[in-house]
Amino acid sequence: MPSLPYTFTLRVYYEDTDAGGIVYYSNYLKFAERARSELLRSIGFGNNRVTKKFGISFAVTWCSIDYKRPAKLDDMLEVKTGLSEIGGATMTMIQEIYRDDERLVGMNVKVACLNKDGKPTRLPQQIRDSINSVGLS
Amino acid sequence: MPSLPYTFTLRVYYEDTDAGGIVYYSNYLKFAERARSELLRSIGFGNNRVTKKFGISFAVTWCSIDYKRPAKLDDMLEVKTGLSEIGGATMTMIQEIYRDDERLVGMNVKVACLNKDGKPTRLPQQIRDSINSVGLS
Amino acid sequence: MPSLPYTFTLRVYYEDTDAGGIVYYSNYLKFAERARSELLRSIGFGNNRVTKKFGISFAVTWCSIDYKRPAKLDDMLEVKTGLSEIGGATMTMIQEIYRDDERLVGMNVKVACLNKDGKPTRLPQQIRDSINSVGLS
Amino acid sequence: MPSLPYTFTLRVYYEDTDAGGIVYYSNYLKFAERARSELLRSIGFGNNRVTKKFGISFAVTWCSIDYKRPAKLDDMLEVKTGLSEIGGATMTMIQEIYRDDERLVGMNVKVACLNKDGKPTRLPQQIRDSINSVGLS
Repeated sequence: MPSLPYTFTLRVYYEDTDAGGIVYYSNYLKFAERARSELLRSIGFGNNRVTKKFGISFAVTWCSIDYKRPAKLDDMLEVKTGLSEIGGATMTMIQEIYRDDERLVGMNVKVACLNKDGKPTRLPQQIRDSINSVGLS
Repeated sequence: MPSLPYTFTLRVYYEDTDAGGIVYYSNYLKFAERARSELLRSIGFGNNRVTKKFGISFAVTWCSIDYKRPAKLDDMLEVKTGLSEIGGATMTMIQEIYRDDERLVGMNVKVACLNKDGKPTRLPQQIRDSINSVGLS
Repeated sequence: MPSLPYTFTLRVYYEDTDAGGIVYYSNYLKFAERARSELLRSIGFGNNRVTKKFGISFAVTWCSIDYKRPAKLDDMLEVKTGLSEIGGATMTMIQEIYRDDERLVGMNVKVACLNKDGKPTRLPQQIRDSINSVGLS
Repeated sequence: MPSLPYTFTLRVYYEDTDAGGIVYYSNYLKFAERARSELLRSIGFGNNRVTKKFGISFAVTWCSIDYKRPAKLDDMLEVKTGLSEIGGATMTMIQEIYRDDERLVGMNVKVACLNKDGKPTRLPQQIRDSINSVGLS
């Protein structure tokens, strides 16, 4: 995958930082989820809509996080997201967080498609087609 | 009310602090909610139990927060909670957060009893009786 | 004050919600702080800049929060902010959170200007002038 | 490593959950950090103390998280922590989160020892000795 096609921009506020003066380590997962939510919304599949239309929701089943450099208060960050794999009931995404040209954090995130009972279920074909048509994979 | 009868103890971790080196201002509301949850659990009315047994949940409808002094990383804090008033569908609580003998934060919190549709509903008599019998009011 | 002059827009994500299906009550304070930070940044006084230039920071010393209706996942919210009073070392703000035309939450927030030792200090004249010139007060 | 020697217990509150009715995925990192902080405190090296005594702090540089089953409101959880490796400036820990006998989440966490400038620095021998003497590694 030559580049990560979807970019989401956010600001770092006091709420995101800790007494070490940097962004608290779990908050990058929040930033990443905002980016995934907006990516899916941008192709028509916002959180509420996929639940109403397909009876599904998404849940992270595995992730790894590589903390290279810390983000700080007032930083503008870019979360770049791409799909590395689509399985029957899962999508695996690569997410990288940048401050200008500096790569701060890299993540691999495996997301499962769940039915109303929280069981893995097949990713709807319509979502699969939309993802493919915009070249995310 | 001569004293606040219920005490809940907690530790301050990095997650609670911000880049100012102190506890982030919204996190005292988390501490206060932990204390209210444990107070109600201690008399038999944990969050899940009141929903299963009575079909209700509690929601804060108003609060004020007076920030006197900041809490810091590693602090052990005490949240002292008392009831100042019980109405038909509401309870008003006073909550004060201490580090040793030092009062850091004072809160007034109005909590409503809600039914499954999120509408105000009468506080169950059994909860009211339990609160009265342990002298919280 | 006929209207609240500064508007900050945000999206509600999973991170903001709780098991009750609505935004967790302390998170409105995060939304309000984002709005205050951007308001001050918009007139040239971002968090880092006021610390570097004036050696000050801002801290909330008192607030009240009136929860009228809950915000939910995927909502777009507007935080409207205005100044109701400027004292020597403090600013008092009114902040209201809307979903479309529906007022969900109202807040009164007293913010103190602190020096590097965390003691109240006079609000720099340059900030005071900027606030007055843009008609926030 | 036959078992994870340090156990930290915590309760799940509303603040930890999301609109899916389960613990929000980044919050397990908070739980894990509470456990690591208390583990180090239990052998004499609380957060503030290591900064005052050695001029160091700890930062996570990499982690992986395997989400097996979700935790829910009111759950009592146990975070079990063990060291899998100690390097010159790093410690790698295994952390597993249980509800009763059910393993919900497994984590591998690499923690670096940083000096006051945020640069990796050798883990103080005294901390290394204490960890070894209590059989954590």
